[in-house]
Amino acid sequence: MRYDIAIIGTGPAGVSAALTAKNRNKNFLLIGSRSGSEKIRKTHMVLNYPGLPDVSGEALNQAFLDQLQDAGIGITDKRVANVYAMDGYFTLQVDRDFIEASTVILTTGTSFGRPLPGENENLGRGVSYCATCDAPLYKGKETVVVGYSPKEEAEAAFLSETCSKVTYIPMYKGKVRLPESVEVISGRPVSVEKADGKMRLNLAPFAGAEGEERHIDASCIFLLRESVAPDKLVPGLQLDGNHVKTDRSMATNLPGLFAAGDLTGLPYQISKAAGEGNIAAISAAQYLDKRK
Amino acid sequence: MRYDIAIIGTGPAGVSAALTAKNRNKNFLLIGSRSGSEKIRKTHMVLNYPGLPDVSGEALNQAFLDQLQDAGIGITDKRVANVYAMDGYFTLQVDRDFIEASTVILTTGTSFGRPLPGENENLGRGVSYCATCDAPLYKGKETVVVGYSPKEEAEAAFLSETCSKVTYIPMYKGKVRLPESVEVISGRPVSVEKADGKMRLNLAPFAGAEGEERHIDASCIFLLRESVAPDKLVPGLQLDGNHVKTDRSMATNLPGLFAAGDLTGLPYQISKAAGEGNIAAISAAQYLDKRK
Repeated sequence: MRYDIAIIGTGPAGVSAALTAKNRNKNFLLIGSRSGSEKIRKTHMVLNYPGLPDVSGEALNQAFLDQLQDAGIGITDKRVANVYAMDGYFTLQVDRDFIEASTVILTTGTSFGRPLPGENENLGRGVSYCATCDAPLYKGKETVVVGYSPKEEAEAAFLSETCSKVTYIPMYKGKVRLPESVEVISGRPVSVEKADGKMRLNLAPFAGAEGEERHIDASCIFLLRESVAPDKLVPGLQLDGNHVKTDRSMATNLPGLFAAGDLTGLPYQISKAAGEGNIAAISAAQYLDKRK
Repeated sequence: MRYDIAIIGTGPAGVSAALTAKNRNKNFLLIGSRSGSEKIRKTHMVLNYPGLPDVSGEALNQAFLDQLQDAGIGITDKRVANVYAMDGYFTLQVDRDFIEASTVILTTGTSFGRPLPGENENLGRGVSYCATCDAPLYKGKETVVVGYSPKEEAEAAFLSETCSKVTYIPMYKGKVRLPESVEVISGRPVSVEKADGKMRLNLAPFAGAEGEERHIDASCIFLLRESVAPDKLVPGLQLDGNHVKTDRSMATNLPGLFAAGDLTGLPYQISKAAGEGNIAAISAAQYLDKRK
């Protein structure tokens, strides 16, 4: 089965795109975090979202999620590792499955950070963004997981079932809950390199913390950020600086692939993201209708 | 006094721009109908506005108006007849007053209709869009008012105090309430022309109605639509077809003048309009900050 539209991301742009896709009777899949937008949830108050005065970020995020539920729109809470532009459709690697969609709307925000030195060069060759996808490749080997949110602990635990050793480096504060076999260490990743036929992750102490520079060698380094940089997620996607380049219909350089929300550029605002999600869904629907 | 921003229009784009301008501590004026967007009010249900599920158009419009009131943002319910780009600021003719603003955000929608044949050529020379503005020019003369909403009856009544005769042509259904001296006739305006030194309005019967073609001659023909075509409102404003041409920051070809909402093009959607209003306000704020 091929979906009409795959919407990646569950922030305001993704929610808006999903609501409009539903209105247009499209067969679509909404993939992202079931808890919506981490960024909005952490916002104290939102004062300029039209229609919901003086709303807390948490309440606004919940209003979006409730509306999806009321509209009968489910969220597929999985990680999209890759989006490949095929001949007239797209193949998405979603955890370890592959799904097909005629169009894609990318709304993955900006929380992908800057790549570490050495990261891009070694991606797919000792650096991975998806433990679930690549675990089978590292059976009985040593791996390192850099987790940018507590959610990634499950990925590290999953790896510990097949790898000979897993080292976990949390990039957040608070308690880490992992099987005893997983070693947890503290440090700030500064670069990745190939050394002695293995991958090496170089670490520095956090600002203000005691400690020395050190490194860990392993067969694979998993860098698990909240989202993957759009040009890494979609090979061939054209950027404009750090943002995805779109026209006013939210079309990217890849026919059938649209983008909306913070990842298309400033301003990083909820209403702007929702508006763009709406436009992207209508543009995707028009693109589909033209091909009939 | 010169305003930082003049926002014209009180639909979702204007409301969104005003909320964000307020957030940015700008000194702004919001000009438009105190009852918000006629188009939204007439919409039965809105199913894809993120945050407000299955809301009636009337309730959504009211939510926008309530939010303005809660935020302490007043609406100046007057007609903007012209916006002139000056050297580094704008002069707006608002009814019979002139106000100045460093930037302008145009959110006047698409309800300006197509011009009648002969309308553009005679604008300002026997055709007018503003009775309040031009009444003094036609003291003791005969005038015709084509009113596109019951609101315009007040304009015709006002003209009847100074003109020797006023003929009123309602473009809507329902009871017309006017002073006895105003003649009310039914018909569909088809063109405007100069004839025998006067202006002539040619009328046809409405589709399906009895009657013959006729014409009325007068010194001035007032065409009072809900809004004025953007390039008539702002001389020099660049269009793209019937829409105002903007870039992704909602900037037009006139520095300091931004546009948002339906008048910038399809899709005609509430969330898209709100998003663009948000972007326009931020772009206007950045424009102002740069000039400091």
